[in-house]
Amino acid sequence: MCAWHFSGEQRCLNSELWHACAGPLVSLPAVGSRVIYFPQGHSEQVAASTNKEVDSQIPNYPNLPPQLICQLHNVTMHADAETDEVYAQMTLQPLSPEEQKEPFLPIELGAASKQPTNYFCKTLTASDTSTHGGFSVPRRSAEKVFPPLDFSLQPPCQELIAKDLHDNEWKFRHIFRGQPKRHLLTTGWSVFVSAKRLVAGDSVIFIWNDNNQLLLGIRHANRPQTIMPSSVLSSDSMHIGLLAAAAHAAATNSRFTIFYNPRASPSEFIIPLAKYVKSVYHTRVSVGMRFRMLFETEESSVRRYMGTITTISDLDSVRWPNSHWRSVKVGWDESTAGEKQPRVSLWEIEPLTTFPMYPTAFPLRLKRPWASGLPSMHDMFNGVKNDDFSRYSSLMWLGDGDRGAQSLNFQGVGASPWLQPKM
Amino acid sequence: MCAWHFSGEQRCLNSELWHACAGPLVSLPAVGSRVIYFPQGHSEQVAASTNKEVDSQIPNYPNLPPQLICQLHNVTMHADAETDEVYAQMTLQPLSPEEQKEPFLPIELGAASKQPTNYFCKTLTASDTSTHGGFSVPRRSAEKVFPPLDFSLQPPCQELIAKDLHDNEWKFRHIFRGQPKRHLLTTGWSVFVSAKRLVAGDSVIFIWNDNNQLLLGIRHANRPQTIMPSSVLSSDSMHIGLLAAAAHAAATNSRFTIFYNPRASPSEFIIPLAKYVKSVYHTRVSVGMRFRMLFETEESSVRRYMGTITTISDLDSVRWPNSHWRSVKVGWDESTAGEKQPRVSLWEIEPLTTFPMYPTAFPLRLKRPWASGLPSMHDMFNGVKNDDFSRYSSLMWLGDGDRGAQSLNFQGVGASPWLQPKM
Repeated sequence: MCAWHFSGEQRCLNSELWHACAGPLVSLPAVGSRVIYFPQGHSEQVAASTNKEVDSQIPNYPNLPPQLICQLHNVTMHADAETDEVYAQMTLQPLSPEEQKEPFLPIELGAASKQPTNYFCKTLTASDTSTHGGFSVPRRSAEKVFPPLDFSLQPPCQELIAKDLHDNEWKFRHIFRGQPKRHLLTTGWSVFVSAKRLVAGDSVIFIWNDNNQLLLGIRHANRPQTIMPSSVLSSDSMHIGLLAAAAHAAATNSRFTIFYNPRASPSEFIIPLAKYVKSVYHTRVSVGMRFRMLFETEESSVRRYMGTITTISDLDSVRWPNSHWRSVKVGWDESTAGEKQPRVSLWEIEPLTTFPMYPTAFPLRLKRPWASGLPSMHDMFNGVKNDDFSRYSSLMWLGDGDRGAQSLNFQGVGASPWLQPKM
Repeated sequence: MCAWHFSGEQRCLNSELWHACAGPLVSLPAVGSRVIYFPQGHSEQVAASTNKEVDSQIPNYPNLPPQLICQLHNVTMHADAETDEVYAQMTLQPLSPEEQKEPFLPIELGAASKQPTNYFCKTLTASDTSTHGGFSVPRRSAEKVFPPLDFSLQPPCQELIAKDLHDNEWKFRHIFRGQPKRHLLTTGWSVFVSAKRLVAGDSVIFIWNDNNQLLLGIRHANRPQTIMPSSVLSSDSMHIGLLAAAAHAAATNSRFTIFYNPRASPSEFIIPLAKYVKSVYHTRVSVGMRFRMLFETEESSVRRYMGTITTISDLDSVRWPNSHWRSVKVGWDESTAGEKQPRVSLWEIEPLTTFPMYPTAFPLRLKRPWASGLPSMHDMFNGVKNDDFSRYSSLMWLGDGDRGAQSLNFQGVGASPWLQPKM
């Protein structure tokens, strides 16, 4: 289970529990694969974490492009010792133009991170967190995740032992009682609530895994009032730090390290190269087009929301011209749309009317080119013979001769005669 | 009491309690005064906070001098919402060479931050933090800080209400009982221990202030095993961030913001200009010289340790040539010396044999020039008439024609004929 290492030390969190806490929409790119890193998105994470927007005083890094193609050398999963907040540490290395153009590896076309299947997530009520009460577990959740109770006992009860992200064990008395009969965690529960500083609105996640272990994760609800500036470094210096670090790494093709905090970050800012290429170069979008986008629900499952593309433009044309980060301005259908971001990135959405964009001189034989749901790049290459594979894959995502090529640092390549303009 | 403001918001921590938690050796420079900022020291704080040394990958900022003379525009006191760790936010602005040379203001020669007088600090024992027990208060501490008990009651007891840094009130039953009779905090104590996650080795500080309020602060012992990298930004990017932010501010004479965390930082890295000038330009030190240095004790008082200067040299001659940061290598007298830093800065020590260094052409009439303890610049100027004040104060600290002038960016000034070489 322990696929990742921390340089020097051995820090190995349970991957299933980490992903359960991170949420159903979060997947970490595979080690060894190529990814796109967005300094803008990283800046958004810092702004959200420190509760402070980028200051206008921050210097410009004119040589730092809005997206860096990088090799992902290392990924480690972590959880904050105080808050249990999950985050991932990734080591990236900007690639030379030659390395950027190499064909896709199988690893880069692979599946998403494994999500747990046998789990439940419950948002805690005031009664769940009161010092007198226990934790009330919905019947279906208890029956799905906890070992079955022996109903010949009066009352039926058992001891549950659950491991948290730090491998600490928590013991709970699980009892079935009351009028009407309910599943409750009693003894041990309030110790857990107080140790983890849980309040009403926070969530707990119980997982029963394939090794017959009970795992227990927590998610603190966002508490804007308690988000304080970090006591280590000012948010301005943090913004400058991430930009200067990325600019230095890009200039020297050297490794740099970032932290990705899936609960704090408004959007993923490290995207698999294959996913990026597909959405930016092989999906046609235009103003007025309808799309779907996945959101996480309160109980840690997934729901689709619908919207319409209203504009396609730079989010920040002064600092980040020609960036694909949140380049799509949208209107949401639902009445809850006020809470949703007004700008999204191409790889976050699923346009409802799409057709393939590929060079006509090199027709790709696609098996299921635009299957509904989330077609993988793997599908796209299935019909291509091995001999042709590297040629196609290295060319196919150069299909955007103007804006994309520019932002991807392919100024030297220019628009070749066989490339079709995107729009 | 609320002397400082957070831009926009009103965050006002109790200054006495903040200083009690910060420790007896910490004083914040006055708002409006000139200070010296050391990026090296700031880097040490980041390294200590993230438990990770500076990486060699970090780019050089050749235009960033090892010490920046800045105006201190703002200071706010903070405490981490989760851990109660105290820190200060300061807004600095690098000064032009003209502004650097302006005469000292009265505020720059003023006294240190006010420390509480009526307080006690106790390191918690295992019994103090057990869930069954109460907090045992030494008799002298209880009698000094708590309101007197009514001994006609059997047992003598009262309710104490203490405010923490976040202005939360904590209620404790204070009782005098047992064999032999002891002062104990009982009801309410374990709630406090659990809410603040206190363990044996952590300390609590009780203050009775001039407004007859009981204040209560905590200090977590250093727990190296739980110091994790921040989940917001990698330590490398933090190091780069502080350097890039300082370099940008220095290049543009613009404001920048730093956090000073007195418990995490190995040394103060923002030093009053007057203190710096006095120690660097007006105190003669040499190899073999004996000195004293103050350290904090476990119970938050102060103890002097003795040592001998063994070398005077750059700490990092490649990255930070001609820096006064930890330029003094020392040997400590005591057997506990192994835990003490092998390098100190001139302003941290008190050489035992000193004599004044001032331009002979402008003899200063000093009242008590080298009084034992901590002579202030104020003393030094007391004998100088107002008319002469500005002239002397603007010249006196240019006394080092070689190394100091260079590191202070006075390359253009050079060694004037009346300046004596320092060593």
